[in-house]
Amino acid sequence: MRALFLDESGHLALAERRSPSSGAECLVRVRRAGICGTDLQLLAGYADFTGIPGHEFVGIVEQAPDGRGALVGRRVVGEINVGCGSCTWCARGEKEHCPQRTVMGIRHRDGAFAELLLLPDANLHAVPDDVSDEEAVFAEPLAAACRILAQVTVNRSTCAIVVGDGRLGLLVAQVLRATGAHVVVAGKHEPKLAVARQLELSTVRVGDALADAERFDVVVDASGRTEGLHAALRLVRPRGVVVLKSTFHGETTLAPWPIVVDEVSVVGSRCGPFRAALDLLARRKVHVMPLIDATFPLEGFAEAFERARAGLKVLIEP
Amino acid sequence: MRALFLDESGHLALAERRSPSSGAECLVRVRRAGICGTDLQLLAGYADFTGIPGHEFVGIVEQAPDGRGALVGRRVVGEINVGCGSCTWCARGEKEHCPQRTVMGIRHRDGAFAELLLLPDANLHAVPDDVSDEEAVFAEPLAAACRILAQVTVNRSTCAIVVGDGRLGLLVAQVLRATGAHVVVAGKHEPKLAVARQLELSTVRVGDALADAERFDVVVDASGRTEGLHAALRLVRPRGVVVLKSTFHGETTLAPWPIVVDEVSVVGSRCGPFRAALDLLARRKVHVMPLIDATFPLEGFAEAFERARAGLKVLIEP
Repeated sequence: MRALFLDESGHLALAERRSPSSGAECLVRVRRAGICGTDLQLLAGYADFTGIPGHEFVGIVEQAPDGRGALVGRRVVGEINVGCGSCTWCARGEKEHCPQRTVMGIRHRDGAFAELLLLPDANLHAVPDDVSDEEAVFAEPLAAACRILAQVTVNRSTCAIVVGDGRLGLLVAQVLRATGAHVVVAGKHEPKLAVARQLELSTVRVGDALADAERFDVVVDASGRTEGLHAALRLVRPRGVVVLKSTFHGETTLAPWPIVVDEVSVVGSRCGPFRAALDLLARRKVHVMPLIDATFPLEGFAEAFERARAGLKVLIEP
Repeated sequence: MRALFLDESGHLALAERRSPSSGAECLVRVRRAGICGTDLQLLAGYADFTGIPGHEFVGIVEQAPDGRGALVGRRVVGEINVGCGSCTWCARGEKEHCPQRTVMGIRHRDGAFAELLLLPDANLHAVPDDVSDEEAVFAEPLAAACRILAQVTVNRSTCAIVVGDGRLGLLVAQVLRATGAHVVVAGKHEPKLAVARQLELSTVRVGDALADAERFDVVVDASGRTEGLHAALRLVRPRGVVVLKSTFHGETTLAPWPIVVDEVSVVGSRCGPFRAALDLLARRKVHVMPLIDATFPLEGFAEAFERARAGLKVLIEP
C-alpha cells in the first residue's frame, strides 16, 4: 500500500509499504485523515516517532478477527491508544495511560496517512449516517476537546478563553460554548479569527488590552507554543484553571511563583471520549466544515503539510 | 520599638521604628516570630518588599478598637492577608486573593520581626492554653500545609511524597499523614531527614532509585527550589497532582509536554485555615518541637537568618 513514512532523520516521504493484515485487529481502509499540530511536532522530533504518522481518520472496516466482525463494512473513527490489557490502568479502562501502550501514529504503531491501518475493534466507533466523512475525521481532536469537561467544571457561569485560533482552539471553544459558558478565542491570525467569528465565537487579538484587564475562570492553551502558555498564565484569575491542551516539543521558561500566589491549577489534558464527540457532531453543536482548508491526495503531502503549518485543518484522502 | 527593617537595597538591619498605635486594628505584642523560607526569598528580592518582614508569630493583644476588645490580653496567632473588604473576593471571605490586599510582612504591611504589630481583630485566633508559644508560632505555616486538603483529595488510599525535608516539608508531611495517607519525605539533608524519621515519617534521598521506579498520587513540592519542582514532576503518576507549596524567586525551565501526556495537575497552594492548624497542634497530630533549631533575640538576627538558611525553624524572641 502507499503511505507516508517518517524516518529516523525526521524526513517524511511517500513510500510503498507492506499492507497490514488484520490478525487480532481490524483492518480499516482510510477515507480521510487529518493533519494535526502533533504531526507537525513529530516532524520536529517530538516523541522520537518513526513510522507512518496520522492519528485522525475516518475509514471503512474491511476485515476483522473471527467473532469480532460487527463493524465490517461500517464507517468508523478510532481511539488511538492501545493498552497492554493487563495493567491496573487498562483494568480501569484508562488505556491512554498504560505504560506499555502504543499510540497510533505517535508511539510504536503505524498511523492513518496510509491506505490501510490496523486498530483493535474495541477502539473503533461507528459513525452516524448523518455525519459526513469530512466531519467524522474531526472526531479524534473533538474528543480531546471534550476531555476538558471531565477535568474542569465548565458551565453557564464560566468565563473561558481559548488561547490559540488554530484548528484545535476552534474545536475547544465550541465544546466549551456547548455547555453554556461564555467563551472568547484569543489569537493572532486574522483569517483564523474571522473563521471563529463565522462560528459566532467572540474573538480578541492576543496582546490586546485584555491581557491585563480581564481574567478568566478557565483558560485553555491550544496554541502549541511557548508564548501561548505564558499568555494563558497571565489571563487566568486567582484560583482559576489553565488547561494545557496542546503538546509542543522542547522546553520553556516560566516563573512558578504566580501559580502559587494566585493558587492557579495547571491541568494537562489529552485524549477524550469519542461518543461525546460524535454526538456533538450529529447534534450540530460543533461545526467543523469552516475549519477545513484543503484536501490533498497522499502524493500531495508536502504541500498539505506546508498548508497545515499556516492554516486550519488540512485533510489527506489516500 | 525595635524591629528588623528590610530596606530597598535588600539590606536587613535592626532599627528603632515608631511603635504602631491600634487605630482600627489590634495591637499585638510579639512573643515569638518564625523565620520562613519566604523571608529568605524576600531578602533575595522576591515580592519587592520594603518594611518589617515576618509573618509567623504568636503574641498578646494589648489594644483593640472600641467594641472589638474580646481578644485583649489573649494569646493569639494571626492570618496575614488583609483585604479591602469591598471586592467580590472579600465578599466571599477569600481575602487572600483580594487584588488590593496587604500581606503582613510580605506586601505593603509591616510584619512580626518587631516588638509590636498590627492586624485586624478578624485576622486573629486565640491560642488554646495547652498549645505553647513555641508550638503556636507554627500556626501560619501549618495552616498553609492544611490548605492542601481543601484543594486535593488526600485519604487512606493516597500515596504521597513531599519533596523537601525543610521546615515546611515536615509540616506538610505530617498534615498529609493525619488523613491516613501513606507519606514519604524526599530530601537531601541527612540531619533533616533524621528529624523526619524521629517524627516517624518514611524518608528517601532525592535522586535515589525511587525517581524512576515509584510514582505517587500526590507530590508536594515544598523545596523552595527549581530542582524540587523538576523532581516533583518526575515523581507524579499519570493523572496525579503536583502541589506547589513554596514560592521561590525567579524563573525555571521546564518541558510542558509531559504534563499534557500524563494529564498531570499542577496546583498552586498558599494560605490556609488557622482553626484547623491550631486543632492539629492541640490534638498532637502534628509535632513541631523537633523542628525548632534555635531561638534568637532581635539583635541576633544575622545569625538567626544564617541558621535558618541551612537549618529547620529558627525563632525570634523580640
